[in-house]
Amino acid sequence: MDAPVFDTLCLIGAGLIGSSIARAARETGAAGEVWLWDVDEVVRGRAAELGLGGVADTIEDAVSGADLVILCTPVGVLESVTQAIAPHLKTGAILSDVGSVKAGAARAMRAHCPEHVHLVPAHPIAGTERSGPEAGFATLFRDAWLILTPIPGENASEEAISLLGAFWQRLGARVETMDPERHDLVLAVTSHLPHLIAYNIVSTAYDLEEVTEGEVVKYSAGGFRDFTRIAASDPTMWRDIFLGNKTAVLEILGRFTEDLIALQRAIRWDDGETLFNEFTRARGIRKAILEAGLDTDKPNFGRD
Amino acid sequence: MDAPVFDTLCLIGAGLIGSSIARAARETGAAGEVWLWDVDEVVRGRAAELGLGGVADTIEDAVSGADLVILCTPVGVLESVTQAIAPHLKTGAILSDVGSVKAGAARAMRAHCPEHVHLVPAHPIAGTERSGPEAGFATLFRDAWLILTPIPGENASEEAISLLGAFWQRLGARVETMDPERHDLVLAVTSHLPHLIAYNIVSTAYDLEEVTEGEVVKYSAGGFRDFTRIAASDPTMWRDIFLGNKTAVLEILGRFTEDLIALQRAIRWDDGETLFNEFTRARGIRKAILEAGLDTDKPNFGRD
Repeated sequence: MDAPVFDTLCLIGAGLIGSSIARAARETGAAGEVWLWDVDEVVRGRAAELGLGGVADTIEDAVSGADLVILCTPVGVLESVTQAIAPHLKTGAILSDVGSVKAGAARAMRAHCPEHVHLVPAHPIAGTERSGPEAGFATLFRDAWLILTPIPGENASEEAISLLGAFWQRLGARVETMDPERHDLVLAVTSHLPHLIAYNIVSTAYDLEEVTEGEVVKYSAGGFRDFTRIAASDPTMWRDIFLGNKTAVLEILGRFTEDLIALQRAIRWDDGETLFNEFTRARGIRKAILEAGLDTDKPNFGRD
Repeated sequence: MDAPVFDTLCLIGAGLIGSSIARAARETGAAGEVWLWDVDEVVRGRAAELGLGGVADTIEDAVSGADLVILCTPVGVLESVTQAIAPHLKTGAILSDVGSVKAGAARAMRAHCPEHVHLVPAHPIAGTERSGPEAGFATLFRDAWLILTPIPGENASEEAISLLGAFWQRLGARVETMDPERHDLVLAVTSHLPHLIAYNIVSTAYDLEEVTEGEVVKYSAGGFRDFTRIAASDPTMWRDIFLGNKTAVLEILGRFTEDLIALQRAIRWDDGETLFNEFTRARGIRKAILEAGLDTDKPNFGRD
């Protein structure tokens, strides 16, 4: 096995992502030692039972010897966690995170990150709808994108950025660097809006069950079931994402609603041509995704 | 193998559903003979090459000897097809379809169905996002719901309804009977709205690619990719569904938009509590689906 990229890794938060990083870092030897801490005592106990790494008693103990500290918490608490660990971070250590919103994360962490620590926010585009330390697995990041969003002119050396990239590559990820604002706009489209829509469509259906007497659940084949899976994701994490990426999400929501109302109008006025043309156009982006090799064209036999 | 439920089956339309019925009917012995016809000469040729059954030269020849005729066409042409075949249907034959909209289908077919033919509209809740005779497979209907929507007091004997149910059960489906209007409302929620939303979100993203320079496609992991798969479905079929189920779709769309705007407002005003509560509530329906045994809680490793 190659030498570890970091001697000591510390993960704050032992949920789906934190526990997956712990597993992957140990399996690939990307870190010599793995330490974890979680604000929830029960989760700390489960992390210890699962053998994810050393489980510290306090957050200070967890971070104090670490060369790389990754905050795997909801983005809403990044600022308070950074504030809590700041006095205990080693000189030359790298502080990173896994949040789905980068401009806000950078602001929150930068407010308290000491000058002798390299701050490199990051976002692995990977996950499932499950939560908690048992949900993690070592191959979660394999072939997934990992986006580094270092802040230009801020306290992160080129070497620190490149070391963090090497760490994620060892975990199997494809590493890219992006401007934080651009990241937030792209993710608002590819991830945040779809999740909001999924939550919303499931809520709308739920309210209608009084009329349909359980038949929405019974006949949920096809499109609807995919939405419920997305909507099973962690509510706290997603609340923080929408509040943290407010500007981009509201911008994209505005466009989405305009487009939807145009389709609604076409239905009301029996404008089949507009519907046909829009549906045909939507097929194009699917084709582009297939051609980019990001998905398989194997139909979804099991669920549709 | 059990005796066939019908001696001679005729399928008009040899796409995903028609070709799957042909395969399943032959494999399970549900029909003695299978005849197909498709308006597209190329599709007829491919159906013959694939050995799906006898391929008739004309639609009249296809239906004339059949005990069961199933129209596997977009719902928009059900009326004209029924009109074309009406004079050639055998006395006592059953005429059915597979359309996703039942009240409209019933009206369209009833207008031209002869009195000596049993009319029993039906809807198999099964499919993939692929189209054409090559896309079909014999197990498509296994454990899927098949909803019969006979019209009360119309020309369909109890025996005909029960024979058609037995045919679909032989193909592996779970058969239920439902009022056509109720079917259309339930499906508007579980299938039609999700598809419209999927088409729309993909279009919105497509338009934004000018801003994001291809990055929406590149980083389409997570929620978005599921939407593009749904949006890859056949545009003609879906245009006809939305026009055919206008009342229910517009009603559900109205509710959906109201709910979405409430979420949008919560984001704008930093109302985290509303977001958290709504997201938590949405998890409940997912739980109900899992408990109903309609999906597995295995996370979607491959694509999220």
